[in-house]
Order: sequence, then structure tokens, then C-alpha cells
Amino acid sequence: MTRAGAKEKNRGSAIAKIVGRNVTKYPEFDNEVRMWVFEEIVQGERLTDIINTKHENVKYLPNIPLPKNVVAVPELLKACEGATMLIFVFVKGVCEQLYGRLEPGAKAISLIKGVDVGNEGLQLISDVIADHLSIDVSVLMGANIAQGVAMDEFCESTIGYNIKENADLFHKAFNTQYFRINCVPDVGNSNLIAAGAELCGALKNVVAIAAGFVDGLKCGDNTKAAIIRIGLMEMRKFCKYFYEGVKDETFFESCGVADLITTCSGGRNRKVAEARVLTGKSLEVLEKELLNGQKLQGSGTAKEVHLILREKHLIHEYPLFTTVYRICYEGLHPRAILEEI
Amino acid sequence: MTRAGAKEKNRGSAIAKIVGRNVTKYPEFDNEVRMWVFEEIVQGERLTDIINTKHENVKYLPNIPLPKNVVAVPELLKACEGATMLIFVFVKGVCEQLYGRLEPGAKAISLIKGVDVGNEGLQLISDVIADHLSIDVSVLMGANIAQGVAMDEFCESTIGYNIKENADLFHKAFNTQYFRINCVPDVGNSNLIAAGAELCGALKNVVAIAAGFVDGLKCGDNTKAAIIRIGLMEMRKFCKYFYEGVKDETFFESCGVADLITTCSGGRNRKVAEARVLTGKSLEVLEKELLNGQKLQGSGTAKEVHLILREKHLIHEYPLFTTVYRICYEGLHPRAILEEI
Repeated sequence: MTRAGAKEKNRGSAIAKIVGRNVTKYPEFDNEVRMWVFEEIVQGERLTDIINTKHENVKYLPNIPLPKNVVAVPELLKACEGATMLIFVFVKGVCEQLYGRLEPGAKAISLIKGVDVGNEGLQLISDVIADHLSIDVSVLMGANIAQGVAMDEFCESTIGYNIKENADLFHKAFNTQYFRINCVPDVGNSNLIAAGAELCGALKNVVAIAAGFVDGLKCGDNTKAAIIRIGLMEMRKFCKYFYEGVKDETFFESCGVADLITTCSGGRNRKVAEARVLTGKSLEVLEKELLNGQKLQGSGTAKEVHLILREKHLIHEYPLFTTVYRICYEGLHPRAILEEI
Repeated sequence: MTRAGAKEKNRGSAIAKIVGRNVTKYPEFDNEVRMWVFEEIVQGERLTDIINTKHENVKYLPNIPLPKNVVAVPELLKACEGATMLIFVFVKGVCEQLYGRLEPGAKAISLIKGVDVGNEGLQLISDVIADHLSIDVSVLMGANIAQGVAMDEFCESTIGYNIKENADLFHKAFNTQYFRINCVPDVGNSNLIAAGAELCGALKNVVAIAAGFVDGLKCGDNTKAAIIRIGLMEMRKFCKYFYEGVKDETFFESCGVADLITTCSGGRNRKVAEARVLTGKSLEVLEKELLNGQKLQGSGTAKEVHLILREKHLIHEYPLFTTVYRICYEGLHPRAILEEI
């Protein structure tokens, strides 16, 4: 079975904390929030038992009390039994198990920032879920690194959606004074807005790799801001090319510019890319040394994006994405990020 | 006589370096770039003499060689005699002296980030110059902190303009491989685009004060990104309200999002606001202690903006601008930046 990484488990618990508090405020929700937890033994006890008695995910979100109505469930099907609202922080192997087992009218929201590149080319994770399970899937994207969310730091997020009623329901489940959710307005074909939000969540990691190179090269703030801006423009161009009709507004939302800024300031993609310049070690080695089992997403996304751009004969229109790919996979020196764009 | 500050002198020399190299490349320019330098004695010698023999502004841009065709001139009128292209990095007292003395067809570009609030309300610096001298005025804005520009760090800038031919000429004078200039396209009433670019250059300093408070409060990256994004949205709303027709594109340019990111990362407004939280000292005291004679622009702009918003009964639509004003002038605690927006 494919297992979720530490990051997904961390995010899942942080979001469960928010949702656990919110559901008790509205009559339309059940009070119990079931959280699927992959069972493991922590200091001789089952993790689900610890969460359900101590109300803390001691391994993946330590020192943050969880509401008592968040209940850890080790079996996926049991966790989803009777549920009409599903929150995905992880997808591999999940849809196969859930196929045909969901409540009629169930709807989902995906917090997964990434894209899937299969035989049919680029595919959004929300589309993967929707296709497998035949349910409506919204997305929650934005500058919402889990640790900050868990600590009630002020932050924002964006819901991209297909069906407004579903987005409104998820808005109620997530929105708090400190976790501010904007639903991108339902103008035109809103599916495209969801696509823009979700693609931003994946593409920003490629830009963060570029930002990390620039940090490692000890360039100043002018240069870093230029790289972030050029990256944002390539993100916008890419989204609009593949999902004609994505609106500029999407890039002004938390899922666009804000998530990009956060990721280029403090994220792991930036950190590893900076270390690549400073140490000369390969990204693979640094991923192991620095990320504590987490994956470097930016280089993987750069490859997926590059394959698509090459197929469409578009690589010259995306010099930043292309140069990140070539530095990661073709041995180009990170200085090229300043020379090729 | 009103004197330019160290910052303007620093910026003037950095830009003179760029322009000095560029003018020799094109037949349409004279080879000599005259730089008005307020005369002062540095280690027993006149600064203009030092610049013209050592080809270095030892006081305001030390250790950066200037091209030999950049000539320091202590008299303003002599510096501008016969000139058809004028670059403003400073304006107070200058227009009065130049009135009626310029070459016919002279055109100007302003690098001054700020607004003027007089009896007629908000006025752009470019409009002040244009009104006084009856010449066309473009603006050069963007993430272009002078020290980085002087050191040939890769950066971008934006030219906002009224007359495309003039912008094209200034583009030739400024653009280099490492100092990339985008002229915002001449669509519709391009004057509005120039207004947007110039207003961004002033308003970003208000947002930087908010970002500094958030840094001082030790909020995480999520929060800072949210503050920057909310600030960008208030900048956009303000520009569009006062100059109907300003386009979203302006905010994606270097003058918009990139300059904002730079200013919220490393600028002096951010630094002083952070110190305000950490030390509890007043902004006035910190301005003296930390800025080495330079002025804190953000608090002044916050006041000017607030006066205008109050007059228009709009303060509730700009919670970030309003809260920055109230923290700076009404004794509100910097924490309010998280509570009031």
C-alpha cells in the first residue's frame, strides 16, 4: 500500500483541528470529524489510540491539542462510511479503495498541491479524484503551511470550485477569523478558476527552486523579486494555455501570489535549491539530508512541466521553467537561472 | 534650498552608470551624460571634481566605477542646458529653477516613488513635474534598489508612459541585459498605466510598514504573505478608484508585485516597523537611529493616503492602510494589523 508522507499527515491534522472546531458551530454538519490515520506504533501504543485519548497527533503534529470531536480511524472505508464531505490531503491508492463505496451526493475538496502526468498528459489531482469517484471536487489552495495553520497564525486560503453550493459548505467548514478563505467568484466557467488555483499550487514549487538558486548565489532582493515575478508570469501563461479562460484574478488570490511568496521565502524547495548552490551536492543527496523523508516537489514538477512543454514545442516561451529543468536534470550550473531568462 | 537626501544621490549615481554606458551604443544620444551634483567638500576636495577625475561618487556610491562620459555638474541649469532628456531622482525646488529654461521638445522621466498631497488632493510627482514644466513625463518604477543596480545585479523595472516614442527612447537609455525594462503596453489611455506604476511606488511603502510589524511580531511566512497580498489588493483598489481604468496588468509588472516583495523583504520601512515592535521605541526615534538621515516614507504616505480616504469616506474599505495609519499616529498596538484587517 502506498503511504502518505509526514507532510500530508501533518497537514491532515492541522486541517482537522480547524474543521473540528468549525463543525460544532453549524447545524448542517455532524459533530464528529473522522480522520483516516495510517496505523503505526508510537512508543508502544497505537497512534490512533493516542490521538483518541490524548487528543494530540504526537508524531505528526506534536504539542497542538486537537478538538475532542476529531476521531482517528485506522481503516479508510470506516473513516469514510456515510460521509458526504471528504477532505483529501493525499490521494495515491485512496480512490481505488473508495470506488463505489461513497454515500450518494458525497463531495470532496482536495488540499493536494501537485499535478499528475499520465498517458493523457497533464491531469489535475482534483480531476483524478473526480474521474475515479464520480463526485464533485473543489480545491483548497493558498499560503497555508500546516504548522502555521495549526498554531492559529493569521493566514489566507483560496477555494476553487465547480459547484458553488459545495464550495459554500466547505467554506463554512474551514473559514475562521485566522484562517481566511476566499471562494474565487463563480464567474463564467468556474472549473477554470479551480484549475488555475490548483495548477498554481504545483507550479509555484518550480519557481521556488529558481528562488533558492538565486538565494544560494547571494543575489540581492531586486533579483529575487524579479525571479518570483517572472515565475508568476510563467505560471499564469501556463495556466491560461492549458485551461483557456483562467482569470487574472486567480493569481491575485492566496493560491497565486501569496502562496508563491511563502514558498519562495521559507519552503523546502527553496531550501534545497539554495543548498545545491552552497554545497555543490546533488538535489537527490540534499533531499535525503535536509528533508527528513519528505519529497522535493519542485524538481519533479519541473520535469513533468518540461515534458508537456516539449511535446507542445513551447519550451522557449517558458525560459524560467525550462532553465530550472535543465539545471536539475541536464547539469547546467545554477547561474544559468540569471543568464537564460 | 532644499537638498536631495543620500538615497536620491545614491540612486542618481547608480542610474547614471547605466545610462552612461548605454548612450554610447545608439546614434540618437549624445555621448555625454551630465549629472547634477549638489556641491560639497569631501576630504578637502569638491565632490564634483572627485567624480570627474576619479570617476566614482566616493560619498554616495563608493567603490562603483562610473563611466567616464558621466560628468558631474554642480549647477542645475548648466546640467540641463540643451538637454532634451531629463531624469529626475529628486524634485523639490528643481522645477522652479528649470521653469522656462528647458530646450523645446524636452522630455523627462521620474524615478521618484511618492505622491504629493496638496490643496487639490492627491498628486503624482510626474504630474507635478509635467504641470510645472509643461513637458511629457514618463516614470521608471520597479524592484530596483540602487545598490543592486549599481552592482549589475539582475533586476527589472517598469516604464509607465504617456507618449510611446518618449518611452521607447528612455527604454534605450536604461535597458541592459541585467537591468530589464518593460514598457507597459500602450493600450487605451496609457496615462492611467503610468499613474498605476507611480502610485504602486508610493503605496508599497505603507504595506512594507505592515510587513515589518508582522516580522516584529514573529508571525510566520503564511501571515506575511497574507499581509503582502492584502496590501497589494488595497494598492490595486486605490489606484483604480483614483485613476479609473488602471489595468490589472500594471500590478503584475515589476512596479507592482515585484517592488512590493522587495520592499517587504529588505527595505527600510520594513526594518523600522519591525524595530518598532521589538524595541517599543517610536517610529520617529527609530528613523533617526536606523536610517542614517534617510526618511521613513511609509508612515508619511500612510498619513497622506488616510487624509484622502477619510475625505472620501472610504477608510473602512482599506483596513490595512487604515490600520497602519492608526498604529503610526493614533497609538494602536502593532498587533492590530492582525486584528483589524
